[in-house]
Amino acid sequence: MNPDILKERQNASFDVQKLIYILDGGPEKTKRKREIVSLVANDPDFDEVDPNFLSRSERYDQAVRKSAQMILKLREYGIADPEEIYIYKSMVLGNRHDTLGLHNVMFLPTLYSQCDQEQSKKWLPLARSFKVMGTYAQTELGHGTHLRGLETTATYDPATQEFVLNSPTVTSIKWWPGALGKTSNHAIVLAQLYTHGHCHGLHAFIVQLRHMDTHEPLPGILVGDIGPKFGFCEVDNGFLKLDNVRIPRENMLMKYAKVEPDGRYVKPPSAKLTYGTMVFVRSLIVGQSAINLAKSCTIAIRYSAVRHQSEIRSGEPEPQILDYQTQQYKLFPLLATAYAFTFVGQYISQTYHRITGDINHGDFSELPELHALSAGLKAFTTWATNSGIEVCRMSCGGHGYSCSSAFPDLYVQFTPTCTYEGENTVMMLQTARYLVKSYRQAKAGQQLKGIMAYLNDMEQRQVRAHPASARPTVVDINDLSNLVESYKLRAATLVESAARSIQQELQKRKSQEDAWNNSAIDLVRASDAHCHYVVVKLFTEKLSEIGDTAIHSVLSTLALLYALHGITKNSGDFLQAGLLTVPQMQQISVRIKELLCLLRPNAVALVDAFDFNDKNLNSVLGRYDGNVYENLFDWARRSPLNATEVHESFHKYLKPLRSKL
Amino acid sequence: MNPDILKERQNASFDVQKLIYILDGGPEKTKRKREIVSLVANDPDFDEVDPNFLSRSERYDQAVRKSAQMILKLREYGIADPEEIYIYKSMVLGNRHDTLGLHNVMFLPTLYSQCDQEQSKKWLPLARSFKVMGTYAQTELGHGTHLRGLETTATYDPATQEFVLNSPTVTSIKWWPGALGKTSNHAIVLAQLYTHGHCHGLHAFIVQLRHMDTHEPLPGILVGDIGPKFGFCEVDNGFLKLDNVRIPRENMLMKYAKVEPDGRYVKPPSAKLTYGTMVFVRSLIVGQSAINLAKSCTIAIRYSAVRHQSEIRSGEPEPQILDYQTQQYKLFPLLATAYAFTFVGQYISQTYHRITGDINHGDFSELPELHALSAGLKAFTTWATNSGIEVCRMSCGGHGYSCSSAFPDLYVQFTPTCTYEGENTVMMLQTARYLVKSYRQAKAGQQLKGIMAYLNDMEQRQVRAHPASARPTVVDINDLSNLVESYKLRAATLVESAARSIQQELQKRKSQEDAWNNSAIDLVRASDAHCHYVVVKLFTEKLSEIGDTAIHSVLSTLALLYALHGITKNSGDFLQAGLLTVPQMQQISVRIKELLCLLRPNAVALVDAFDFNDKNLNSVLGRYDGNVYENLFDWARRSPLNATEVHESFHKYLKPLRSKL
Repeated sequence: MNPDILKERQNASFDVQKLIYILDGGPEKTKRKREIVSLVANDPDFDEVDPNFLSRSERYDQAVRKSAQMILKLREYGIADPEEIYIYKSMVLGNRHDTLGLHNVMFLPTLYSQCDQEQSKKWLPLARSFKVMGTYAQTELGHGTHLRGLETTATYDPATQEFVLNSPTVTSIKWWPGALGKTSNHAIVLAQLYTHGHCHGLHAFIVQLRHMDTHEPLPGILVGDIGPKFGFCEVDNGFLKLDNVRIPRENMLMKYAKVEPDGRYVKPPSAKLTYGTMVFVRSLIVGQSAINLAKSCTIAIRYSAVRHQSEIRSGEPEPQILDYQTQQYKLFPLLATAYAFTFVGQYISQTYHRITGDINHGDFSELPELHALSAGLKAFTTWATNSGIEVCRMSCGGHGYSCSSAFPDLYVQFTPTCTYEGENTVMMLQTARYLVKSYRQAKAGQQLKGIMAYLNDMEQRQVRAHPASARPTVVDINDLSNLVESYKLRAATLVESAARSIQQELQKRKSQEDAWNNSAIDLVRASDAHCHYVVVKLFTEKLSEIGDTAIHSVLSTLALLYALHGITKNSGDFLQAGLLTVPQMQQISVRIKELLCLLRPNAVALVDAFDFNDKNLNSVLGRYDGNVYENLFDWARRSPLNATEVHESFHKYLKPLRSKL
Repeated sequence: MNPDILKERQNASFDVQKLIYILDGGPEKTKRKREIVSLVANDPDFDEVDPNFLSRSERYDQAVRKSAQMILKLREYGIADPEEIYIYKSMVLGNRHDTLGLHNVMFLPTLYSQCDQEQSKKWLPLARSFKVMGTYAQTELGHGTHLRGLETTATYDPATQEFVLNSPTVTSIKWWPGALGKTSNHAIVLAQLYTHGHCHGLHAFIVQLRHMDTHEPLPGILVGDIGPKFGFCEVDNGFLKLDNVRIPRENMLMKYAKVEPDGRYVKPPSAKLTYGTMVFVRSLIVGQSAINLAKSCTIAIRYSAVRHQSEIRSGEPEPQILDYQTQQYKLFPLLATAYAFTFVGQYISQTYHRITGDINHGDFSELPELHALSAGLKAFTTWATNSGIEVCRMSCGGHGYSCSSAFPDLYVQFTPTCTYEGENTVMMLQTARYLVKSYRQAKAGQQLKGIMAYLNDMEQRQVRAHPASARPTVVDINDLSNLVESYKLRAATLVESAARSIQQELQKRKSQEDAWNNSAIDLVRASDAHCHYVVVKLFTEKLSEIGDTAIHSVLSTLALLYALHGITKNSGDFLQAGLLTVPQMQQISVRIKELLCLLRPNAVALVDAFDFNDKNLNSVLGRYDGNVYENLFDWARRSPLNATEVHESFHKYLKPLRSKL
């Protein structure tokens, strides 16, 4: 072990193991996690060439091999609990994607939730045994988030009791679905349903794409890979062009909406039902944000503990770069964010499962709030993580650019979360729609429940932008509940301000829609403030569950840093709303520096508590033992360009060049 | 031509051609530029496979071929003017790097500036004819920015009149130099010079690495590629381990410092001389920031004009996404920034050339300011561009992730500028050092010249953080000179505040060095504000040179947007310093929305004026003709994974999986 990092661990003020238990949900969970982790770590079948050394086709090939092995081994070991499967897969996949992932994340869940009984009987066994390998084809070349804009058609032919599917234009070609290009033999295709000449909007259809034995595309099906992307090298995101493809009537998913044999259309009971999968995936993404930011912080902080650079005091040895205030200022707020998002991810996943239970009992009352919250938090956490990964990478200097650091892989595999499953700005505006609606309800005297309750007593509080300082003096910048209150009032102010902007636009005789669009900047800002408030609130609430004094102390410091750092980054909001004063803002800047010093001795222990296995982290810079340089050199020497001492291009181009000059 | 984008061009309020002339520096320059551009565009020798479809080794091979061809063609065409060479190369390279680039950017310039007469006679002809292909080896595996920390040694042996070079540790292995791994046969190696047992610090030595004919590494030389990175696939960034490598005394670059045959060391006349290359490269990087942000804006804005999505008014066709306020808010401030950085790049390049002239006449007086300014602006512009490229990419939804968009290439080839040639935080602190020094000089009564003159009358102005508002009422938020003044006062406030932080730390009996480190957050903030002020100032000053009324009007709108957007993003600073009031802040938010509307009809024309050739932009989304979708589909079908209908992995892994389950 590198002596610097050893010393860091010895200096920690708390028991790392106990914090691991807290994050995992108890010692038994940690024990079981480690059992699963060691199953993969010690399995030679998962040895692999660094994908960064391979061509795209080789990467895809290796990834399919691993995905197939993973399926077999999970059955062999009898791992069936979703959480345990997740742990196993994360270990196998490291910072890359499961080539067959869409099958489990979108195809199967859609079958579960939208098949009627007979369909379930037919399709689930086929899909669970991977005879049918499927994906979910919604997005089109020319159409994304806006479902009504999708052009693919499914026209019912009562004569044959079939649907005829078509991609009528270039822009209607299905585009992006993972595993569509080469892997899947079936897809759930979203298409505009036509019966008797009427369009009934978007519905889901099971379409067979490839021959079950030869895997060749079926007639009328043009399918392929959409080409190299920023990351996702392992995944064959694909295109699909349908030319009069006929499928039996029974291939429309009919749990809710139906088409009778004669072509009669039966409406679904509630439009909200289809939100289920989306909300689920978005809540997963919040957890993914936490994990990816935690990984990035682990790499950057461990490396910063072993890297020595420049000088603080002249004549003395080069200090650990973690001793630089600027480095702490880059990394510790992100570390605090990683903890915040971990707790938010746990909260939203628990809430999802609780509300799903309610929905199954016919109670939809909490769904709108969850829908709005998951949309906004998906955007809020992915944006923060997206830029945070890059800050971590760049905090490692040149070595952060090396693929051996894992940062390039981490970034490119994470960044699409800002766009897929709901583009982030669109997500923020969805949340804003809920906020404005709640605001109007509150203003109309309705008593709001849940997280939106803060809008209830707005009128009395006279929350509005003003420079005067009626409130600030009561804010103790070291008191988290005071800060939660400030974040709340900031959110309320900005929701009100966005609503007022819409009102002003309407008074200019703009239409509702134009008024909305002309207030979109304010609306996004309001959503952002709302999410920020929720995160600070949930982090603060989590602290009350922590019994261990030492851990409570360090997590409180992190929570305080998270809250105060967020204030300085948005100081204009807090000043404009009169929530904090200029002297308080200066105190906060000073206090942040103190918090950085307080956290410094615990930084390595705090990332150790995320408990990433080296194989999962897959980063030379983030190694647990801190032995960075020798391993960096070893890795480089294995690079394919070093297979020969002299590259052929010397003889082909460089040597001949001389004689020509 | 796509009808949407055609309409955009017809709606522009100004003559694009005239703005192109302004950006290029006159119609003759534009004419010549286009001649050079068409030389490449019509040259079949530069036809290539999309590098995104190739393996790393194939990419390197293709890049070496192109670099070699480029050298021959430049000679053939007699293109020798640096600006014209730059245009030609940019066209050939598109969004990728010149494999042989370091030879021209670092190796040759160092020879020019640090060879004595005899050395010039020997090395320059060899290097200019590419017999000697060189790179510049400074950074080591364990050491970056801090030159004194470098470990490579060059020990003079008077007996043989040779230097003996060694990499004594793993951390001393040279690491990162471009073209070091496979391409170069020589390197300028930076090493600690030892004569007669004394270390004289870092000096530059010419070291032959590879045999001139066979290209095999010479004895004692372990050289290779450092492995795949985030981008720079075309460049063989390398490592170099030296084991008792002997070079003749004459291979130390001796224009300034010398070692006599008997080992006597002769000091250089001024330490500042070696700054020259660094300042030059940093000023180039500022220009690179402008170009890369301009490219990104071109792609995103053209695509936003042809992409239709969702709805603003229900029932109406999907609008161009450029009509969404949120999209305008993402892209137009970046467009304004691209213009700002273009003018800043031109300014700093002109200043460099002017001051270089002075230096050659022995006048070093302006060098410190240029050194400080180029450091800070390098950091300021690269950070802004780095995040700006990603905002542009993500504003294009899913298609921004496709390599066909050019965004992935643009980002990964640009992002290293945040780290190389001076890590950005270190650069900001270098500028801060100059700012604090200037502040102290002003405080001591010295009259400052140049850009720092704003610190002269600080005492009288009583610039300090206070919430009161003595000044704000005089600020007209539509008057750019007023805003320049506000940015200036913000910078002055933050410089003073950083200086005060250092003072307070010193009063706590901290050492100078600890006081500096404990104020580093404030120092970076001060530098950032200083650079921001310089950019707003230069943009504003540029406007006075624009004669054409229509162009003056649209560029003024851009400059105003740049200035006001910067204020809202840093509103806390302006409020805390009492430079603007809360009502003004609200007016600014409203005004920004108006500016977005004003710019909307000119957005496409403004990116057209950057005049990127389609081949240079190399983006399906950014095509001049706007025909995005059909070309995206064509490109995807050429992807290597589509070479066969069924990938071998189906037969190897997926089909066998069924029988095992």
